Amino acid sequence: MTTSEVHPRADADARMALIELAHCVEPADAVVGRLVQRAGPLEVVDRIRRGGAGKRLGEGLRARLADSGAPSAEARATAIGARIVTRVDREWPRQLHDLGAAAPFAIWVLGAADLRLTLLRSVAMVGARACTGYGELIARTWSAALAECSWTVVSGGAFGIDAAAHRGALAADGVTACILAGGVDMPYPRAHEALLARIADEGLLVSESPLGIEVRRQRFLSRNRLIAALTRATVVVEAAERSGTMATARAATEMARPLMAVPGPVTSPASAGCHRMIGEGEAALVTSADDIMGLLDLGRSQASTNPAPRANRDALSSAERRLLDAFPARGAATAERLVSSSGLPASAVWAGVGVLASAGWITEDPAGWRLVRDRPPPQPS
Amino acid sequence: MTTSEVHPRADADARMALIELAHCVEPADAVVGRLVQRAGPLEVVDRIRRGGAGKRLGEGLRARLADSGAPSAEARATAIGARIVTRVDREWPRQLHDLGAAAPFAIWVLGAADLRLTLLRSVAMVGARACTGYGELIARTWSAALAECSWTVVSGGAFGIDAAAHRGALAADGVTACILAGGVDMPYPRAHEALLARIADEGLLVSESPLGIEVRRQRFLSRNRLIAALTRATVVVEAAERSGTMATARAATEMARPLMAVPGPVTSPASAGCHRMIGEGEAALVTSADDIMGLLDLGRSQASTNPAPRANRDALSSAERRLLDAFPARGAATAERLVSSSGLPASAVWAGVGVLASAGWITEDPAGWRLVRDRPPPQPS
Repeated sequence: MTTSEVHPRADADARMALIELAHCVEPADAVVGRLVQRAGPLEVVDRIRRGGAGKRLGEGLRARLADSGAPSAEARATAIGARIVTRVDREWPRQLHDLGAAAPFAIWVLGAADLRLTLLRSVAMVGARACTGYGELIARTWSAALAECSWTVVSGGAFGIDAAAHRGALAADGVTACILAGGVDMPYPRAHEALLARIADEGLLVSESPLGIEVRRQRFLSRNRLIAALTRATVVVEAAERSGTMATARAATEMARPLMAVPGPVTSPASAGCHRMIGEGEAALVTSADDIMGLLDLGRSQASTNPAPRANRDALSSAERRLLDAFPARGAATAERLVSSSGLPASAVWAGVGVLASAGWITEDPAGWRLVRDRPPPQPS
Repeated sequence: MTTSEVHPRADADARMALIELAHCVEPADAVVGRLVQRAGPLEVVDRIRRGGAGKRLGEGLRARLADSGAPSAEARATAIGARIVTRVDREWPRQLHDLGAAAPFAIWVLGAADLRLTLLRSVAMVGARACTGYGELIARTWSAALAECSWTVVSGGAFGIDAAAHRGALAADGVTACILAGGVDMPYPRAHEALLARIADEGLLVSESPLGIEVRRQRFLSRNRLIAALTRATVVVEAAERSGTMATARAATEMARPLMAVPGPVTSPASAGCHRMIGEGEAALVTSADDIMGLLDLGRSQASTNPAPRANRDALSSAERRLLDAFPARGAATAERLVSSSGLPASAVWAGVGVLASAGWITEDPAGWRLVRDRPPPQPS
């Protein structure tokens, strides 16, 4: 299906506005982000074009927007086999909402797998570039074990722990996603060009940087927050005391994502950051891939045994209740069918299935979404 | 000074009763221990002799007491250069009270250092007999660092971590105490005969088993609780999941002593017990001897900034207030002088200085005890 089939005109306009914002606003710019939350992407792009609304939306952004080439971005992505996924798209990973005003507007993806579904069951494995043989062994074997249990291993493609994590998942014929700081057409580090090409073939290359953007220090930092935000938990294999890995770890903690760390010899500086995080209670100590999956499942079983307030039908919005009532009593419904049966716009359907799924009313299915059997069926309203 | 100078007749009788109990009651027997708490050692020994007071104090104990050779125990200890320290003696480590009814009645000591003062500033370092080179290195170097900072390193004399801990302290010309499961005249393991002899020369060999008693499984377990009880904190360097070391660790936790553990490679089974304890929050993760001392000093500074209820003069017993008022305004007083100036029996003085010192009113001094200057001087009553 093509984009136009799913998105009516209003969504297509919002989509282009989000792509334009992704071109002219620096990643994690919460000031513009808050404005977009309040006024919507179309209004903000309009204000930037008119050069209005304060210093932040002044000439700098206006000039960058004019020069961005955003209107041709989609065509350029398609030309290299990539695609752009924006906040209003079905493939958008809902967990990025946890970044609040600092969430990206759009994401560039290279790889056949569905971004949203691939990352639903994902874990970040990150660590030192200057890792030890011990750390590399752990990253490679645990990543393979996670991949064998259908977990997507997410990392940053760097030397050391990152590369070992990607390679372990690939060796197990699993899915791995590499989140890049620059454009998905700008492999970095260059020495990993072949590895990154293989990840694009068998998994996903992902970036919030438009095509052609080179890595810069600030983009590494915002990339690290994206790794934490996209995944269910972050595992630090080895990390020195002050490092980019620590930024990823902090981001995970700030978003209340489980943070785990691997102990190592106290004589190894590469384990010092892990030991500090464990010692100060910031990270859970894990000694095996099973430990990681145990903690992830614990989080899930707690979520399902603690009925969330949102699971109550009364707590749903009227659009969400309308969507819930539009589900067939048996079997799965595609998004298209739900748009038609609910009469809601596609964007409301995509947002609504996210809410209903996380509240436990519905579940994803190869054929779309279906009602969860063991919950009381929705009452006619 | 000899024992008779310090202990009036009543204390000498209690002392002999405690030595007799140490000969006929198994270590950590809380049933007899509670009876001694209620009725006193003289009464309990008398009941055992009369064969009375229920099954527990029946023929078994009576026969063991008759065969124990307790009356000659002191002479036999003196003959090999050892001594017996009982609950009513000055050298008795007050922290053993934390064992409650399971506290030993008497302790055999081989070595010149004062048992009580040596253990005031002590830390237990324990771990696997089947340790790795990594664990041995950590135990040896950290023990040396602790010894250099005047910490007494306490361990159990076993192969592996224990021996490395003792050797590290000895190499740093520090003090180390080995707590044995059998008698101090029964070196175990035999391969450590030379090491144990050196510990007796430069530190302390300690046991609650009378002379001539061989190690037995039950005595290892009670010895482990003694290691935890005698020290300010317990550090586990390496430990497999189920091991005697874990018993020491549990004992430390039960007595609210800080428990610390050293992480290691997750690929090493010898670190599995440490990782479990750290992961479950039972033990603090330590990565250096400085970490250990930092946690110990933290405990001390918290104790001194949190005024304990006992620090209030009104919370002292009348005997303790009387003892406090018997201190000279300046300079130190020996126990003999305090017996004379307070008019209290020696046992009340020894018990009282323990209470006053832990409540912060007085402090130990090479010449005895003295009032702590920065507290308000005691008001005349």
